[in-house]
Amino acid sequence: MTEDEAMRRAIALAARGLGTASPNPVVGCVILDPAGEVVGEGFHAYAGGPHAEIVALGQAGDRARGATAVTTLEPCNHVGRTGPCSRALIEAGVARVIVAVDDPTTEAAGGTEVLRAAGVEVEAGVLRAEATAGNIAWLTAMRRGRPYLTWKYAATLDGRSAAPDRTSRWITSAQARQDVHELRGTVDGIIAGIGTVLADDPQLTVRRPPDGRLAVKQPLRVVVDSHARTPQQARVRDTAAPTWIATTAELGAAADGRIDLHELLAALHARGIRSALLEGGPTLAGAFLAAGLVDRVVGYVAPKLLGAGPTAVLDAGVTTIAEAIEFDLTDVTQIGPDLRLTASLRPKEN
Amino acid sequence: MTEDEAMRRAIALAARGLGTASPNPVVGCVILDPAGEVVGEGFHAYAGGPHAEIVALGQAGDRARGATAVTTLEPCNHVGRTGPCSRALIEAGVARVIVAVDDPTTEAAGGTEVLRAAGVEVEAGVLRAEATAGNIAWLTAMRRGRPYLTWKYAATLDGRSAAPDRTSRWITSAQARQDVHELRGTVDGIIAGIGTVLADDPQLTVRRPPDGRLAVKQPLRVVVDSHARTPQQARVRDTAAPTWIATTAELGAAADGRIDLHELLAALHARGIRSALLEGGPTLAGAFLAAGLVDRVVGYVAPKLLGAGPTAVLDAGVTTIAEAIEFDLTDVTQIGPDLRLTASLRPKEN
Repeated sequence: MTEDEAMRRAIALAARGLGTASPNPVVGCVILDPAGEVVGEGFHAYAGGPHAEIVALGQAGDRARGATAVTTLEPCNHVGRTGPCSRALIEAGVARVIVAVDDPTTEAAGGTEVLRAAGVEVEAGVLRAEATAGNIAWLTAMRRGRPYLTWKYAATLDGRSAAPDRTSRWITSAQARQDVHELRGTVDGIIAGIGTVLADDPQLTVRRPPDGRLAVKQPLRVVVDSHARTPQQARVRDTAAPTWIATTAELGAAADGRIDLHELLAALHARGIRSALLEGGPTLAGAFLAAGLVDRVVGYVAPKLLGAGPTAVLDAGVTTIAEAIEFDLTDVTQIGPDLRLTASLRPKEN
Repeated sequence: MTEDEAMRRAIALAARGLGTASPNPVVGCVILDPAGEVVGEGFHAYAGGPHAEIVALGQAGDRARGATAVTTLEPCNHVGRTGPCSRALIEAGVARVIVAVDDPTTEAAGGTEVLRAAGVEVEAGVLRAEATAGNIAWLTAMRRGRPYLTWKYAATLDGRSAAPDRTSRWITSAQARQDVHELRGTVDGIIAGIGTVLADDPQLTVRRPPDGRLAVKQPLRVVVDSHARTPQQARVRDTAAPTWIATTAELGAAADGRIDLHELLAALHARGIRSALLEGGPTLAGAFLAAGLVDRVVGYVAPKLLGAGPTAVLDAGVTTIAEAIEFDLTDVTQIGPDLRLTASLRPKEN
């Protein structure tokens, strides 16, 4: 296996930790002996569990001596719930370490310097773009100090999320609705506005097919509820998952008397939420979009037309076409009769 | 070549006549000798030009004797601008004719009966679904007595066709706009409402890359202009293409004082228009949709969000979710940064 092939394998391994490794990054590691044979593989599955490098070194055993470790993220240099990976690699006698992405955090970075100081050859930046994409939620969270935010919506071809009489069950298919559960299973938090809670009383949980039982790991349910109007009987308050009712009493109010969304996300970050899914309603989505806080859009589009009724998003702060909020399509997948569009916020040109 | 393979080839040949064969159907024909060798191929390229069978028989010459003719549409039985194909097939000594789709018209049908009466073996219905899809515009027009109508729109992810200040240049990319010209090149007529003509002054022509010159064949431009308000200087009146300003003075008025859209389409059918593209605005689109007259939707979706501004369609007669106008996605293609969605009206369940 070439080193590039090993990095691709490490990136694929890393992805297995999505949804469970948080608040830690996803990491994959492959150890190659001098002949290019894979002698160890690992990924970081759970916060508190062993790091990818430690799993791979354990598999390699004595064969790690003189070997090359290929890892998607710079090996950590700090003693958290586990020991520093940089030291483990040195002690195992690894001769060479190949890294895709540098660790952007101050507490864990510095692993490559320690390795180099110990005489280990280090090459950084291999397949950086692919590895960055695979770890985008955690990297964005670390760089911005807030969760990577995905806005999810369901709408008709003409952008309506309900009919004029507000009926909307179901705009999209059962397959699309199950896919939403899969999507929820990849994030740490699910955010909804008080308007949606009052109108639809959603439970905002992750359920698994075929019987719709609750998943073991449930994201934190977050209600943006400036004036604490969430009913005591609301399903979002049930025991199926943890819940945070965010109010101005706790977070303070912005100029408009509502919760400052930057403050909300900073508070979620402080709770270890690295990725969050924004689900309804249109006003809250517009406010997050206007604040520049949406990193990704996942739209479930039903091939239907309504011609009237509530739209999926309202008031995103755009008044003229040049201000349109632009995304880049990254994936288009047919889900049953519907279409799932995934798009990432287009970086602003300077 | 098997007979099924020959029919697939004939269907592919037929498609070469799309946009030029109208008001005639597209037809392809392959002639196989008893050993399964292709001895002739043809398609109907232009109204007034030779039919597919005649072209194929001409190529086959004496080798048509005892051969099998594989044709996408029942051979015609009438003397129009060319002689009846059924007679030509008999005279050439063809032993067997395989047909995908029966001719639904009273004047041209009956070809298979004539063939059978002359001792030619006829098999009908081979690859009927594929051949029907390839000829859907003409077949729909013949069955319904009106053009096959495609509604084309361009919008953001949230279904807006312009920003709140009505600016919209350009919502979609140059590639998507060129694709619209390709789409226009496949129809006989382009329909727009007077509101769009007054607001945007579109030319509604087919232009070809790379220099944007006018295509040789231009669809009829149709302005739905109940009260004859199209300005004399409107670009849609220029000499680049033929134009019909449809008014209530000519067509009569419906109960609401506007043109009856069924009357409009019947008038277009009488003019030989077999397929038409409906382009703007949202009110006219809503009226056609509400009347059940849209057969297909082609949407150019830009990965942008506006959160406000005019929507692509208005007032399609839907008040509750069960009345949503449902389509089946038939194609999804990325066009530059944008997405093109094609969907056909879902047949109503009885």
